[in-house]
Amino acid sequence: MGGDNAPVNEILGSVLASKERSDFIEITLVGKENLINDVLCKQDYDKSNIKIINAEDVIDMHDTPSDTFKTKPKSSLSVALDLQKENKSDALISVGNTGAVLANSTLKLGRISGVGRPTIGSLFPTDSGRTMVFDVGASVDCKASHLYEYAVMGSVYMNNVFNLNEPKVGLLSVGEEKSKGNEIIFETYRLLENSSLNFIGNIEGGDVLRGKADVVVCDGFVGNIILKFAESVLDVLKSKFRQYADKGFLKKLWMVLISKTMKTIIKDFDYQEYGGVQLLGINGVSIIGHGKSSPLAIQNMIYRAEDVVRKRVNDRIKDFLNRENIAEL
Amino acid sequence: MGGDNAPVNEILGSVLASKERSDFIEITLVGKENLINDVLCKQDYDKSNIKIINAEDVIDMHDTPSDTFKTKPKSSLSVALDLQKENKSDALISVGNTGAVLANSTLKLGRISGVGRPTIGSLFPTDSGRTMVFDVGASVDCKASHLYEYAVMGSVYMNNVFNLNEPKVGLLSVGEEKSKGNEIIFETYRLLENSSLNFIGNIEGGDVLRGKADVVVCDGFVGNIILKFAESVLDVLKSKFRQYADKGFLKKLWMVLISKTMKTIIKDFDYQEYGGVQLLGINGVSIIGHGKSSPLAIQNMIYRAEDVVRKRVNDRIKDFLNRENIAEL
Repeated sequence: MGGDNAPVNEILGSVLASKERSDFIEITLVGKENLINDVLCKQDYDKSNIKIINAEDVIDMHDTPSDTFKTKPKSSLSVALDLQKENKSDALISVGNTGAVLANSTLKLGRISGVGRPTIGSLFPTDSGRTMVFDVGASVDCKASHLYEYAVMGSVYMNNVFNLNEPKVGLLSVGEEKSKGNEIIFETYRLLENSSLNFIGNIEGGDVLRGKADVVVCDGFVGNIILKFAESVLDVLKSKFRQYADKGFLKKLWMVLISKTMKTIIKDFDYQEYGGVQLLGINGVSIIGHGKSSPLAIQNMIYRAEDVVRKRVNDRIKDFLNRENIAEL
Repeated sequence: MGGDNAPVNEILGSVLASKERSDFIEITLVGKENLINDVLCKQDYDKSNIKIINAEDVIDMHDTPSDTFKTKPKSSLSVALDLQKENKSDALISVGNTGAVLANSTLKLGRISGVGRPTIGSLFPTDSGRTMVFDVGASVDCKASHLYEYAVMGSVYMNNVFNLNEPKVGLLSVGEEKSKGNEIIFETYRLLENSSLNFIGNIEGGDVLRGKADVVVCDGFVGNIILKFAESVLDVLKSKFRQYADKGFLKKLWMVLISKTMKTIIKDFDYQEYGGVQLLGINGVSIIGHGKSSPLAIQNMIYRAEDVVRKRVNDRIKDFLNRENIAEL
């Protein structure tokens, strides 16, 4: 119920996924039953494959995430997580309030043994493909042990979901040398260096888009700032295009002619195209997407959920953290 | 001597500035005399206006900045700062090792009374003009009092050099609300809120390029990372253009046709075009530029130096910090 176009895009995306993979996926739509029915009844779908469960409360972007556990106990988020807790579902998809998904998922499902703090990553386009930055908003004050966990979870995720063999882990800092950074970076460097991860050392801000690492590790304060900064680049470029076009009729005409090429070239910067990311470190699967997610994006998030469930990403994280004792690094 | 094309671009830029403003500027070229002479003797310039002082040591990018004070006492940087210390010059221009300029300037000239830590800012293009981010690399661990000082110095700088009346100061954080951020952000928010600066509150990573603030305050760790990230955007865009052109002859031809427009639109992202920035907070004037600076960029840095000297930016900073006691905020 929390997306910008809720519940329409959620329902349309679910119908798309259910049609294409009806043998593999069962969908439960959780939210205000009457609103969902209004949209769903107009769709052509297999009734055995999509269920509805009513939830009265709606969390919006103005709710304080950590309070929603108490203030909105009957939110679609809360009810959907209960299903997972009771083993009636394998994964949650939400394009609502990210902080609320994080807080409720962590409180309801608990953390994976060995994880001190869950994390949300974000995919960035690179010269040659994509890189994933952890963390982008779950935590604003990190210890070295948290950054080490992000590196582990990110590596397992990129290895399993993107089929990367030994993903390269880079620690975001103000210089490549081991001596560059602050105390937390130094300590994290030491942990990563001694770990079994494919640690390539410190990387700089300019290395993210250049694709130097497959997993970029930073605290949520820095990660959130560069994510929002990156998202704004597209806006600023579009605004520059408009300013150029506004300089006269011929320029406007020329802009119309070249706009398709421009769009092709900059579409990798459109972070909304990427679909959802998994909240890593919790005992369950919560996939979080952009509030503006299209039905196609929702459909992709459902497939992403199926993928991480089948590949048992959480078990892989648990195995790694049990195998490698941080106290011994 | 530290620039990528030293001493050629430094000399050509000096000749340009000296010709255009011979009544206002006297230039002393400090460095290896024979190398300077080799280039200078081929130029047409007014000998009464450009002097040479020999300096034997050369600091390069591999030198540890804080050590150069001891390891390279006869560097062009060190000798040039001595001139300023002895009141034989008003300002230093360097496109060499930034950390070395920072360390040597601070040690030789000292800090302005009331300043705990000097800062280097960087101009970012915005929708409507430019914004300046402080700090972008002078410090990786900041207290709230340092961030407050950056806000003061940045405001005075933007007010005097860019003629902005009451520059808007934004504190970079992970959300606009006062409650978003970490302990240092909360404390800085309180200081700025109680100050006489035009504080507009927290801003997010996406607000930098959108020009929400004239002065963006963050620690040098975050500032350095977003600066390098921003610089890389241009590289990645260029690479996308090339990848597009490589897809076939017609696409290549089309790319040639539209490349001029592309360049016009993205040129604001070319951080090398901006010339130098002043190291703020020291008892003197050090202007630091990009190692790749063109003669034109050097010329502009010389004018920037003249401007901040004439406008007595340092006195304005001192006045502000004496007037407003941080302990009372």
